[in-house]
Amino acid sequence: MTRLVTLGHTGCGEKISMKDLNSLGLRYSGGLLQVLDQQKLPNQEEWITCRHPGDMIECIRHLKVRGAPLIGVAAALSLAQLAESGASEAQFLRAAAELRDSRPTAVNLMAAIDRMTELGLRGYHQEVIVQMAELIFDEDVELCSQMAKNGMAVISDGDSVLTHCNTGGLATVGVGTALGVIRAAFESGKRIHVYVDETRPLLQGGRLTTWELDQLGIPYTLICDNMAASLMAAGKIQKAIVGSDRIAANGDFANKVGTYGVAVLCHHHQIPFYVAAPYTTVDAHCPTGREIPIEERSAAEVRGVMGSFGAVQWAPGECEVFNPSFDVTPAQLVTGWILDCGLYGQREIKSGILRRLGK
Amino acid sequence: MTRLVTLGHTGCGEKISMKDLNSLGLRYSGGLLQVLDQQKLPNQEEWITCRHPGDMIECIRHLKVRGAPLIGVAAALSLAQLAESGASEAQFLRAAAELRDSRPTAVNLMAAIDRMTELGLRGYHQEVIVQMAELIFDEDVELCSQMAKNGMAVISDGDSVLTHCNTGGLATVGVGTALGVIRAAFESGKRIHVYVDETRPLLQGGRLTTWELDQLGIPYTLICDNMAASLMAAGKIQKAIVGSDRIAANGDFANKVGTYGVAVLCHHHQIPFYVAAPYTTVDAHCPTGREIPIEERSAAEVRGVMGSFGAVQWAPGECEVFNPSFDVTPAQLVTGWILDCGLYGQREIKSGILRRLGK
Repeated sequence: MTRLVTLGHTGCGEKISMKDLNSLGLRYSGGLLQVLDQQKLPNQEEWITCRHPGDMIECIRHLKVRGAPLIGVAAALSLAQLAESGASEAQFLRAAAELRDSRPTAVNLMAAIDRMTELGLRGYHQEVIVQMAELIFDEDVELCSQMAKNGMAVISDGDSVLTHCNTGGLATVGVGTALGVIRAAFESGKRIHVYVDETRPLLQGGRLTTWELDQLGIPYTLICDNMAASLMAAGKIQKAIVGSDRIAANGDFANKVGTYGVAVLCHHHQIPFYVAAPYTTVDAHCPTGREIPIEERSAAEVRGVMGSFGAVQWAPGECEVFNPSFDVTPAQLVTGWILDCGLYGQREIKSGILRRLGK
Repeated sequence: MTRLVTLGHTGCGEKISMKDLNSLGLRYSGGLLQVLDQQKLPNQEEWITCRHPGDMIECIRHLKVRGAPLIGVAAALSLAQLAESGASEAQFLRAAAELRDSRPTAVNLMAAIDRMTELGLRGYHQEVIVQMAELIFDEDVELCSQMAKNGMAVISDGDSVLTHCNTGGLATVGVGTALGVIRAAFESGKRIHVYVDETRPLLQGGRLTTWELDQLGIPYTLICDNMAASLMAAGKIQKAIVGSDRIAANGDFANKVGTYGVAVLCHHHQIPFYVAAPYTTVDAHCPTGREIPIEERSAAEVRGVMGSFGAVQWAPGECEVFNPSFDVTPAQLVTGWILDCGLYGQREIKSGILRRLGK
């Protein structure tokens, strides 16, 4: 299932510039790499210029760039930019290692970095690296379209769909993962309504998914995370679709904290629960969810909120906090895995299809 | 099970002043009725003077006074203050009706008002009204102590206990409902840890429960509501205890939104789940949870946060919001009902004990 591509270098020392690349939250043009500051959305749309991988690491660590697929693509573009600037192979590999360590859970980052450095290890050719970054970008667009195509049938006309965190054009360089599926269903003419979990503590649902849905004209209702259960009990949610930061070989997956609770609630209310992710999110070397490293973030994120809208703290300043950025949903709670290569159910996942995908 | 008391009036027209009454969030002294502004906690400890039931209605509507038992007691004291001031019976009954309508879900409010006006209907005697308000206050203190005593055995040495919203000294005029039980277990020498749901949207957990636990020296960890599920999966929560705003005759109960989700998660993880409430929270005339009216509040509460810590909004200004203040937990998800008159399990509840309590 590994995507094959022939990358070549001219061998004549010619300098190749990366082509212009554009997405909702990431763009590259004439050597200028910019990311939309997702911490400042929706109040401010501010683009940050990344001149060096150090800038990109800063953006990734502080979730200015976030969303598992987007992080991978952004890191690849940052490395390509470094190679273009004439960096030595040693500088390139050091930057790659630092980028790889910038966040621990989303495996798309590691996958993208590995693809970039495996090329370098076979001989450090700037033009090959640039082509790989372009490929990773273009491929993500295509993966999103494939997921949307594979998943849209699970949403029926008249459905209300619950989603958690942000999984749209801001989390990828294409139409998104879970939100891409929802968008495709909507654009195919189905009358749907989206319930948006605000997604504490960083409010990716309340800030980013609302912003995207407004732009797309898809009707939605914003709720606090703890309100989904009563909507389910009232029969107001027909499907739940979420994204993922890492899918283990057995189908367990990590996603934004709160996802596991949604999965349990769906199970209790017999509501179909789907995860949508590209193959770059599958970690075939990770046997189960237990082996997925879960990032813990700062207490300040839970003691209050902060963003371009302001910063307030309501909890006691020194209070102890638990702030895992992700949680793990076991495979048995998942109705279907919407991947770029198809829609899979329990039987296919148990048969080991994810292990084969990662080869 | 109705508490009997003999209230008498002197018949000599003598003016009787209400005795001094003190609790964590409500106090009365020499005609001065004051409430601690719970919207300003924990940053500011500001007492609001209520000169007329209209002031108290304002405080209740804006959750400056909140917590089902406290609302009931505060409303009773406000009516007694009105009677003391020489109001006519018609003025008294009008104020009682307005207070009764100030919030729809917590039945303690209706129960307290009804006790105050039933007296009035048998002849409008200021001193009897004052005595009833004193009784309602003193009784709530005693009810809390009884619940704490009845419930503390469910918490074992070494337990970590999850709680939702605020149910302590701020929600009652005694030691609290669920938090009173936790406090009694702690003060009996059991080593316990409390996981505090922040309780969006109004953050009663993050602002008030943390504040109370700090004062009591009980160790705790603050979490976002959507993090409890992963703690349960990791075996880090042994019990959950919550309060209630209304318990129906069949044992279904309404409580702060998010409670139902906690109950489902506990059920899934086989974690005992308790509700603690005084008999004044039982509505024997309400057959099931379906008949409990659920208050919906303003969209602004979900689009951002506001309080003495500041006010920020992160969501689009016009976005549609669903903001139920409560949800309903069905009786079958409850391990035990901790009441002032005892600790009851499924069998007792099914046998109709709550219907008898309300007579």
